[in-house]
Amino acid sequence: MVESASKTKRLGRATRRAAREAEVTPRLSTVRYRVKPVEVVSADELDRIHCASLKILQEVGIDFRDEVALAQWKVAGADVRGQRAHLDGDLVESLVAMAPERFAMTGRGADTDVEIGVDTLTFCAMQGAPNIRDLDGTRRASTIADLRKINRLIQMSPGFQIGTGFACEPTDIAVPWRHLHIMHTNLVDLDLATNGLTTGTARAEDCIAMARIVYGRAFMDENAVLWGMISGNSPLVWDATMLEGLRVFALANQVVLIAPFVLGAANTPADVVATVAQLNAEALAGVAYAQLVKPGTKTIYGQYSVSVSMKSGAPMSGMPEISLLNGIVGQLARRYNIPWRTTASQASSKLFDAQSGYESATAYMAAVNARANFLLHAGGWDEAGMVHCLNKLVVDGEQNLLMAKYAQGVSFDLLDEALDAVRRVGPGGHYLGDPFTLKHFRNAFIAPEILNYEAFEQWKAAGGKDMPSRAREKAEDLLARYAPPALDSSKREELDAFVARREQEISPNLA
Amino acid sequence: MVESASKTKRLGRATRRAAREAEVTPRLSTVRYRVKPVEVVSADELDRIHCASLKILQEVGIDFRDEVALAQWKVAGADVRGQRAHLDGDLVESLVAMAPERFAMTGRGADTDVEIGVDTLTFCAMQGAPNIRDLDGTRRASTIADLRKINRLIQMSPGFQIGTGFACEPTDIAVPWRHLHIMHTNLVDLDLATNGLTTGTARAEDCIAMARIVYGRAFMDENAVLWGMISGNSPLVWDATMLEGLRVFALANQVVLIAPFVLGAANTPADVVATVAQLNAEALAGVAYAQLVKPGTKTIYGQYSVSVSMKSGAPMSGMPEISLLNGIVGQLARRYNIPWRTTASQASSKLFDAQSGYESATAYMAAVNARANFLLHAGGWDEAGMVHCLNKLVVDGEQNLLMAKYAQGVSFDLLDEALDAVRRVGPGGHYLGDPFTLKHFRNAFIAPEILNYEAFEQWKAAGGKDMPSRAREKAEDLLARYAPPALDSSKREELDAFVARREQEISPNLA
Repeated sequence: MVESASKTKRLGRATRRAAREAEVTPRLSTVRYRVKPVEVVSADELDRIHCASLKILQEVGIDFRDEVALAQWKVAGADVRGQRAHLDGDLVESLVAMAPERFAMTGRGADTDVEIGVDTLTFCAMQGAPNIRDLDGTRRASTIADLRKINRLIQMSPGFQIGTGFACEPTDIAVPWRHLHIMHTNLVDLDLATNGLTTGTARAEDCIAMARIVYGRAFMDENAVLWGMISGNSPLVWDATMLEGLRVFALANQVVLIAPFVLGAANTPADVVATVAQLNAEALAGVAYAQLVKPGTKTIYGQYSVSVSMKSGAPMSGMPEISLLNGIVGQLARRYNIPWRTTASQASSKLFDAQSGYESATAYMAAVNARANFLLHAGGWDEAGMVHCLNKLVVDGEQNLLMAKYAQGVSFDLLDEALDAVRRVGPGGHYLGDPFTLKHFRNAFIAPEILNYEAFEQWKAAGGKDMPSRAREKAEDLLARYAPPALDSSKREELDAFVARREQEISPNLA
Repeated sequence: MVESASKTKRLGRATRRAAREAEVTPRLSTVRYRVKPVEVVSADELDRIHCASLKILQEVGIDFRDEVALAQWKVAGADVRGQRAHLDGDLVESLVAMAPERFAMTGRGADTDVEIGVDTLTFCAMQGAPNIRDLDGTRRASTIADLRKINRLIQMSPGFQIGTGFACEPTDIAVPWRHLHIMHTNLVDLDLATNGLTTGTARAEDCIAMARIVYGRAFMDENAVLWGMISGNSPLVWDATMLEGLRVFALANQVVLIAPFVLGAANTPADVVATVAQLNAEALAGVAYAQLVKPGTKTIYGQYSVSVSMKSGAPMSGMPEISLLNGIVGQLARRYNIPWRTTASQASSKLFDAQSGYESATAYMAAVNARANFLLHAGGWDEAGMVHCLNKLVVDGEQNLLMAKYAQGVSFDLLDEALDAVRRVGPGGHYLGDPFTLKHFRNAFIAPEILNYEAFEQWKAAGGKDMPSRAREKAEDLLARYAPPALDSSKREELDAFVARREQEISPNLA
């Protein structure tokens, strides 16, 4: 017997009509995991990695290339020699224990609160691309107009709970001014909690100041509306620029994401377990430092990890070693009881083609099966991060809905009622007209829009469109329906004036 | 700090040279899982599903539309009313317990043995497509020449451990003669254990007879060289055609794969848990029947499951509900201690595009994270099974290698040696020239060939080829290098004569 589409029975008319009347999908709120994650290593093996990380911090030490941080570590009792801090395991563990296991992030729009915790799942689109692949497939350097367009797509896509800040680089704006314009579109075109830039004290302070114009200082003293990326410089270095940003964000009660930057076999050993031991040492030192700056700082334990092609030197996506690394990092983060971040939808393809799909879905499933809590780059990432693909952003927005449904597992609430249907239908029957089906099919199985399930002939008659073409149509529809979220005009004026004033104050030429 | 390719450090020359010298990948042998699988339901919840399945078999009953089977069930003490058998839980469980937890399958080639067990992973390409999507992208009805071509690609791809039989339908051959030609190419063009057809006694017997020509009857009495697909007719029906095939294969000591055919919300209730309860009832009845036919029959617990689009009635791939279903079925199969089968690389796209990639990788990762033991359709499946895409077959062959590496988890053997490298390199260094890297990078991170990791400019200079184009080049290279596996000329003549004789005996017109 052949397992193919030809065996599908046709659905009843009433069922089809009801399906068409399905409502618009609401934005994902807090997604709570029910699926129990994979375990890549045993409890003993996990302990061995944890101990190896502590030993690295103690014996090899870690560089904090920042005088303030070194002074703080000294005060805390660390053995500091030059820029190198040798951190005792007890000190690290006692600081890490101060990081909260969950916290809220709050946007200015209705129903935009999301809880980031050790058992939740939050999706955030890619950041940092110097190029975009536009809706028509054109690849070019990205501009502020592109960033605005991306923010509008994120605002209109229910699969993103949070903003990503610099989804692409606005290369048409002088580097010293970029953070102002990035922050402006994030606060104006989006109503979600979002990312603020952390590259040095002045920029971080500008971002906090702009967010305070919109949210108010008192509100932000109590609520996190921004998260900042604190990237490590592997192996075993934290640079001043990032540590400055960390301090500004932590002291303003905003979220810091501590992320060693792993290029497996290039800046870590050519071994998965040892790579984890090193990145965990780096992450623990960063998390501990955030708590040293301010106990209770809302911290996400992170990493960005790829393996590196020994042919071209380029980072590789969707690789099994990185999936395994994710599984172990998830086990470690649960041991430390801190929410953790990984990368989903990571792809290396130069086109939004099958490779891009394979790599992205592998990264998604690796992350969700490892119970990652903060999925960065879960939208648009292609070409190893060198492009933000707008069609892919919209496709990934839909994938996020599928992943959220998977993470949330199954419900037993309808089992007894459904078993009555089994009795009613019996051997050889079918369920299409059964009352249980009519009542529950809408919520039972998710129905994507961009993924296409037509038969070949239907699909061909409707134009034979590939996935990027369908995504483009979807994106154009979202942009056409986009309306800026309401913002008090005085706040908007103050934001605009802030950007104008800081542009006057900051030289547009790089120092 | 931006997480992108621009940060990649260039590799050392010695490292690159060593990479180029990497050897040809050997065929996967037995892949043993080390990653501990996801759990979708708790132990109590699993018990509830198991009990619901037994209750369905007892109270609702299941149709065996086959007089022999009904008589056997009566003898075994089942409550048979007409074609419906009401099966007691103890009877079912005692029969299911007779199914072995592992067994070998053996091909005629060197190193083609593979163990199918509750902790192993075996990859098998798709079967049953009525069309192919040829290397140049053309979609057309498939022929016996296509099937031969596919078998040659499988033979040349190290990611397939076993043959799939009717990878596509040879539509240019009369239906009553097809099984002869399908079996002929599987025995001649491949040297792997493979699939034999099970649609009725006569065809199944022909397939066994042909395999005996190649392997010898005595050898096959002790060793499994063929597996047969026994598809259920959900809800709750086993048809005579399939049961006849089951009996022939079980009595000849070959493997039977018991697979209910689930179209969620069409032939099962619109509820994931109840769908599992029903399909588990069907599978248990099938597995139990195989043991009733012959205790100890080598049985794979299976299912083919998709949800159904309520817009078009078409099956949907890569859906979260089916990933969840896989997780639960895996938990059940481990409870019963029987190897289980699911579908990997299931896609619905009408082109080998990004959709196909997303769907395929989602299905792969769902299967492997659920610790599936037999991954059917893990190669070539697209358009909901209506086409065998030859480029996708080759891509999936590579994906199988990645999935196998993931399933096998991590090793701690090199940890101490690698931590010495961490000490050597220290903060701010790099690992590219380190002795540990040079010694171990080859095995540390897998290096795919069809997935492309070049930078945009390199890729463009090399022709800017999309994934299907690169897969086509790979496929053409494999076909050019293909040489038929050696087969004793007298056996080949006997096989040819068997086909000729049976064509004389069987009317080419359908009864």
